Parts: sequence; structure tokens; C-alpha cells
Amino acid sequence: MSSAGHDSAAADRLWSVEEHLEDVLTTVRPLDPIELPLLDAQGCVLVEDIMVPVSLPPFDNSSMDGYAVRVADVAGASEDFPAVLDVVGDMAAGAADLVQVGPGQAARIMTGAPLPPGAETVVPVEWTDGGLGQGPVQGMRARSLAPQGGTGQVRVFREAPARAHVRDKGSDVKAGSLALEAGTVLGPPQIALLAAIGRNTVRVRPRPRVVVLSTGSELVQPGEDLGTGRIYDANSFALAAAARDAGALAYRVGAVADDADTLRSVVEDQLVRADLLVTSGGVSVGAYDVVKEALSHAGDADEPGGGVEFRRLAMQPGKPQGFGTIGPDHTPLLALPGNPVSSYVSFELFVRPAIRTLMGLQDVHRPTTRARLTADEPLSSPKGRRQFLRGRHADGTVRPVGGSGSHLIAALARANALIVVPEDTESVAPGDQVEVILLG
Amino acid sequence: MSSAGHDSAAADRLWSVEEHLEDVLTTVRPLDPIELPLLDAQGCVLVEDIMVPVSLPPFDNSSMDGYAVRVADVAGASEDFPAVLDVVGDMAAGAADLVQVGPGQAARIMTGAPLPPGAETVVPVEWTDGGLGQGPVQGMRARSLAPQGGTGQVRVFREAPARAHVRDKGSDVKAGSLALEAGTVLGPPQIALLAAIGRNTVRVRPRPRVVVLSTGSELVQPGEDLGTGRIYDANSFALAAAARDAGALAYRVGAVADDADTLRSVVEDQLVRADLLVTSGGVSVGAYDVVKEALSHAGDADEPGGGVEFRRLAMQPGKPQGFGTIGPDHTPLLALPGNPVSSYVSFELFVRPAIRTLMGLQDVHRPTTRARLTADEPLSSPKGRRQFLRGRHADGTVRPVGGSGSHLIAALARANALIVVPEDTESVAPGDQVEVILLG
Repeated sequence: MSSAGHDSAAADRLWSVEEHLEDVLTTVRPLDPIELPLLDAQGCVLVEDIMVPVSLPPFDNSSMDGYAVRVADVAGASEDFPAVLDVVGDMAAGAADLVQVGPGQAARIMTGAPLPPGAETVVPVEWTDGGLGQGPVQGMRARSLAPQGGTGQVRVFREAPARAHVRDKGSDVKAGSLALEAGTVLGPPQIALLAAIGRNTVRVRPRPRVVVLSTGSELVQPGEDLGTGRIYDANSFALAAAARDAGALAYRVGAVADDADTLRSVVEDQLVRADLLVTSGGVSVGAYDVVKEALSHAGDADEPGGGVEFRRLAMQPGKPQGFGTIGPDHTPLLALPGNPVSSYVSFELFVRPAIRTLMGLQDVHRPTTRARLTADEPLSSPKGRRQFLRGRHADGTVRPVGGSGSHLIAALARANALIVVPEDTESVAPGDQVEVILLG
Repeated sequence: MSSAGHDSAAADRLWSVEEHLEDVLTTVRPLDPIELPLLDAQGCVLVEDIMVPVSLPPFDNSSMDGYAVRVADVAGASEDFPAVLDVVGDMAAGAADLVQVGPGQAARIMTGAPLPPGAETVVPVEWTDGGLGQGPVQGMRARSLAPQGGTGQVRVFREAPARAHVRDKGSDVKAGSLALEAGTVLGPPQIALLAAIGRNTVRVRPRPRVVVLSTGSELVQPGEDLGTGRIYDANSFALAAAARDAGALAYRVGAVADDADTLRSVVEDQLVRADLLVTSGGVSVGAYDVVKEALSHAGDADEPGGGVEFRRLAMQPGKPQGFGTIGPDHTPLLALPGNPVSSYVSFELFVRPAIRTLMGLQDVHRPTTRARLTADEPLSSPKGRRQFLRGRHADGTVRPVGGSGSHLIAALARANALIVVPEDTESVAPGDQVEVILLG
């Protein structure tokens, strides 16, 4: 499409927010899955059903520190009439050798240790004299203090039914059952389960690598001297941070000057490490709108399916937007406007869902709610454009912060929500219900 | 305190959840702040008030692509009677040289470029012929197509009041005002603001380095063969993932065998990279409870203020817990029980708030709510112990998943909440309101 003059019908058309978003989300495909070490897969989406290879627990085991005994040997035991049993050894957790428990015998057993053959139940150590020949104890003597282990006799002061304090093999999960479904997002508890069933790697969609670059000859890197007519580059930082917040691995490229050849060269260089490219600035109707100039031609010749299209959206802020794919792998590229607030709102509406689609997440959008507008005066909004105002949401109400100007970055830093004013609404009165996008 | 026998009064006492948590949170102090590059500070807490060194925008600038003109020169302009002005040059964004605009003159101006001396207002390019001598245009010709820049004449079809489409210097933030308060958590919009005012580094509390280690001779690393009587090490993975999720940098140490000297040596080795140590297992009343054995003595001699205390808590799961400080820097250490669910619940209740306290966050706890219990039968809970059951919370209701057994790791992976049953409640009926901790 043309970037100048009144000769282009396509340039005249106003796209709705939904049309642009649909174009993005039908073009962007979830990334191919890879096998990752368990902790590297945190936050990623599983692409395979995970079956349980081994029951959990893998064997009957004790849920208490105590003594493994036969039920008949402790029947009727009390503090006045304790059962006295011969201690034939220790069952430590992880012990490979199993002690055999016969009539009149007990094995000292630790939490998690296998129930030894012959034993039918477990009496907690607190129900015994711990082998010390006196009253009930609070615990066993540490091995360092009593290295001889489980020997001598133990007095048991309470009876126990069969399989008391015993965790049955397979009572957590059974071999052959489904542990986790494809599509599950791997948080700490899911990682716990995968480790518990012996998985050290898992097949997931990786975090997308998102290259962020800002454009504009007026941009100076923070920390450097600000010359006449220049401003600091905020967008590359904001977009990199927001991409990371959305789940991506973000690479920030410092501001690129307004020169089409330079920009094309930087973008080509970055393609190798990008699953998604995000630019800010240079997409409007000025003579120096270099992103538009450099990328409008990127895919119209010998690269089928490629090319970035620039369009006007029926929204405020964020009217000028570019979207398409570039390079041999048809890497998606979103070209956002350069005003910091326009750029940030555009990220929230279009880039964040694109990142989450690349991750294979089902729920790609921010949550929305309705809230009562708290404001000193009515909000006005341009007819035919959907307006996104920065607001603070709390307790079912939302209050605008800052004005509608797209450069009010200070107000953005105080906002936790976007107030949505629909295309056909020109004014919203205090007390009215409005749609609110919650920024997390 | 003693780890064995019935000779210790301290060991008899049952601690409430609140008492233990208070002990942890009054001992753990926020980490000392450091100066970090902006993007490394994402998610961290600012420790200084940030003042604005330079107004934003730093100069009056155009909010549109168009022409900078004098008000009188376009007064009364219309499509039938356009104002015809001499174009004296370009104001590109970032241009250091300012064009002087006199009577009858116009400067072509790009969004963000400084309003040139002499100009009083901006007319958008869409209100002009773009210098092409015909009707209104959609935009300017790209510089590559018209490298001569702003020359010739422009016809303006609408009038504009003074300072139309002009963003005033300081209208976003003024030099000397407060940009961000100490205590602010740095998310993407705050990073945007800091970059915009020229900050490339910022003073924050760093992410705590949390070393996680599991103990138990029964533990096998996932991916390896499971021998007789052994289970896979889930806790070191779960706790490392949970620590990261809470905001920490987590270092996972594979399972340490049940030997006190080995454990002491591993812990000492890890101290150098730990702001917080978390162990799982070995804290109960068995003969092989090596964490208790190894660390009970860690601080009782020549290290004042050090030492880990082991205690019983009035909760289920998670009754046995250890807490204290070790090593020359009095590094805090939380010793959690070894059952995976006990360990995870203990992390949520005690370790997560400790990590967030180290970060300097104000709000260290998970959000809680009340929900209606959905269940097939009443929940029973032991008197005198606060029970934490795994549940799924949705739409104001919560349903238990799995049972109360502390080994039900599969159920934990389906939970998104903990159901809290207070100490004095022994039964909760379906339909009752219960307190719920939301796991995020």
C-alpha cells in the first residue's frame, strides 16, 4: 500500500480493533514444541498428555515415625498393660533391605520407609517408650546419639487397627493413569508432580523470543546527555519489560535512527533470534516514518506470504499500526506507534495476545470487568473511535488518571487498568458503568 | 533444644501458625539495596524517591504530522479559499536545527518535533494539500520519494487556534516533581517512566537468592532408575519453582543423603550464594531426621544470634518445622517437612512471605477470600490444629481436591487454593463459608 498521497483506497479504510486483532491472532501460530529440562519449562504449556509410569507412592509406606508391628501383638495394649515387643531392626527411608517382622516383633520405621514384610500396621513413636523403658516419648533418639539403631525391646501403649499410618501403594496416583493433560500450564505444583513421577524433561512450547526495537532519530539512551529537540528512549525499555511480563524472552535493541536502509538492516540482523518482532515509532503519515517506509516493501516481491501492512485503526490512542510477516521464516512483526502511551496500549491490546498465542496459551487476553466511573466531570470520547483511558481500579470503581493525551507516561505509571469507551459513545458520566481491562 | 526423649519442655509446646510466621517475619530483614540497570530491576522495589530531572516533554512539540504556522496566516482558510504559505523547511523529530517561521511561512513538522520559533500552531497534513497542489492528502510523501524535504508551497484548508496539536513542555511531568515514590514495585509502566526521564540505573532491593535443598537417602533424581524403597525427589524442583514464582533467584541443590556431616558441609558450601536457605525433610521425630540433627547445634556455641530451632506447629499438614539463622551472616533458614504436600503448604505459608519480605514488598501474603464449600460430605479436621486442604476455587465456591493425606501430590497439581479449617473447627458442612487462600 502507498505511504503517501490520496491515491490509495486501502489507506482510507479504518480498521476496527477486532479486525486488526483477528488478523494478528490468525497469522501468529503457536511455536513448535521442544523438550526442556523441568525447571526450564516453568510457565510453559505442555503439549503431550503425561501418563504415570510408576504408582505413587511406589510401595506401601509409613506416614509416621514409629514401629511396624502385627495387629494381634498390640491388641488391647495400654499404658498400664503395654505390649512388649522385640525390636528386630530399622526401616529407614530409602533402605533397600527389608526387615522381616514376625510375631512378637517390631521394626523401627521412619516416615516414608516401606512397610516391612510381616508387619500389618504402624504405631507412632509417641505411643511407645521409644525403647527407653519408661513412659511415652516425643520422638526417637537421633542415630548419632544411638548408633546401634533399632534393638532391644519397645513397649507399646496403644493398640492399632490394620494398616494404621500406612500409605497404600498407588493411593496418590496409579501407574497408567493420566498425570497431566496436554495444554496444562506448568506451575510449581505441576512441576512437583512431574518430578515425583520421574520426569526430568518435558515437551512444551518454549517461551517466545521477542525482539523489541524503537525507532526515531530524536531518541537518546537513558543515562546519556539529552540534546536539543531530543527525548529519552522509553519504548524499548517499556516494551521489553512488558514482553517479559507476558512470558517472553525479550531482547531490547536500542533506538534505530530514522533511516530506512539502517532499519531494514537491523531488522534483518535480528531475525535470527526473533520469534516475534516489535517496533515502535515511524508508522504514521509523516515524511520520516521510516518503519512504514522500510517495511512496506519488505515482502511484496519474491517472498510469498510476507510483507507488513500499515493501517489506521478506529482507536485512541494507537491509530496507526503495522502488522505482517517478514523474512524467510515469515516472522510476525507488529509495528506500534511511537508515543509511549500509544505504544504501551497497543502492546496490551495486540502484542501481549500474540505472545501468549505463540506460547500456546488458551487464555491470551487480560481479564476485563465492569466498574463504576468515579470522575469529577464526564469523559468525552471521539465518535467512531474506541478510546482506552488509563485508570485506577479498586473495589468496583475506576478513576481516570491523567488525561487522554497519548504522551502522558507519568499517568500510565499510576494506572492499573484501561477504561474502554466504545466507538458509539461520546460521553461517559460519573457513576456510569464502564468496561475495564485489568492490567494485572 | 533436644531432638530426642521426653526431657525437653520446649519440644512439648505447640506453636500456632501465627507465632511461627511472626518469628520468621521479625527475623528476616529486607535485603540491602543495590543500583541495578533498569531492566534488571523489573519486579523489584524502589528504595529511593525518584525526582524528575527534566520536564516531559522537554520542549513544546507537535502531536501531529503537519505544518507549523502562524494563527493569523490560516485564519478563515477553507477548501474553497485555502491559505497558501511558503514552506521554509522541515522539522523532523530529533532535529537540532530549528527553522524560523515568519509571516506567510510554514515549516513541515513531524510528530514529536519541536515547535519552531515563530510558529504558533500546527495544522495536520490531512488539512492541507501536502504541497502537491491538489486537494487534501492522507499523509506526507516519504523522504525517500521526495528527498528535497519541505519546500515550495502548501495550501491549508482549515484554520487552527493558537497551540492546536501542540504538547506543552512539562505537560506530562515537570522537572523537580516526584516521578516515583520509594516502595514502588517496578513494572513495565514504571520502567517506561524511569527511562523517559533518563534513568538507566535505579536503586532497588535485589531479588533474593534462595538455595533449595531436599534431604533423604530415599530420594532419586528424576530421569534415573528408581530402586527398591526409593522415591523421586520432587521437593527440590517444587520449592525452586515456587521460590522463582515468588520473585526469587532459585538455586536447586539435588537431594542430600541422610548424613548429618554431609548435610552440614553442603549447607556451609551453599551459604556463599544464599540470602535464604530452604530445606525439606528430616525435621520430624525419627532417628534419621538429619536436618534436625545437623542444624540444631549449628548456632549454639560461638555464633551469637545463630541457630535453628525445631518445633511442632498446630497445623496439618506441616506440623514439624525448623527456623533460625546460620553462618557468619546469620542467613535465615527454613527447614520444611519432607512430605511433598506438607513441604508445599509450608512454603506458601512461611517461605513465600519470607522471600517477599527480603524483597522489601509491603504485601507479602497471598490474597484470601471467603467461599462456599462444595463437597459431597462434611470435611473433618483435627481439633486444635489448623488444617489446610487443597481445593479448586471458582465463582465464590471451593471444592476440595484429593484428601487430607499429605502425600497427595497429584491432587495438589489440580488445586488453585488452600481451604483453611480453623483450630476450633472439627467439621465443615457443604454450603458453609470457609476461608480460602488463593494460590494465584
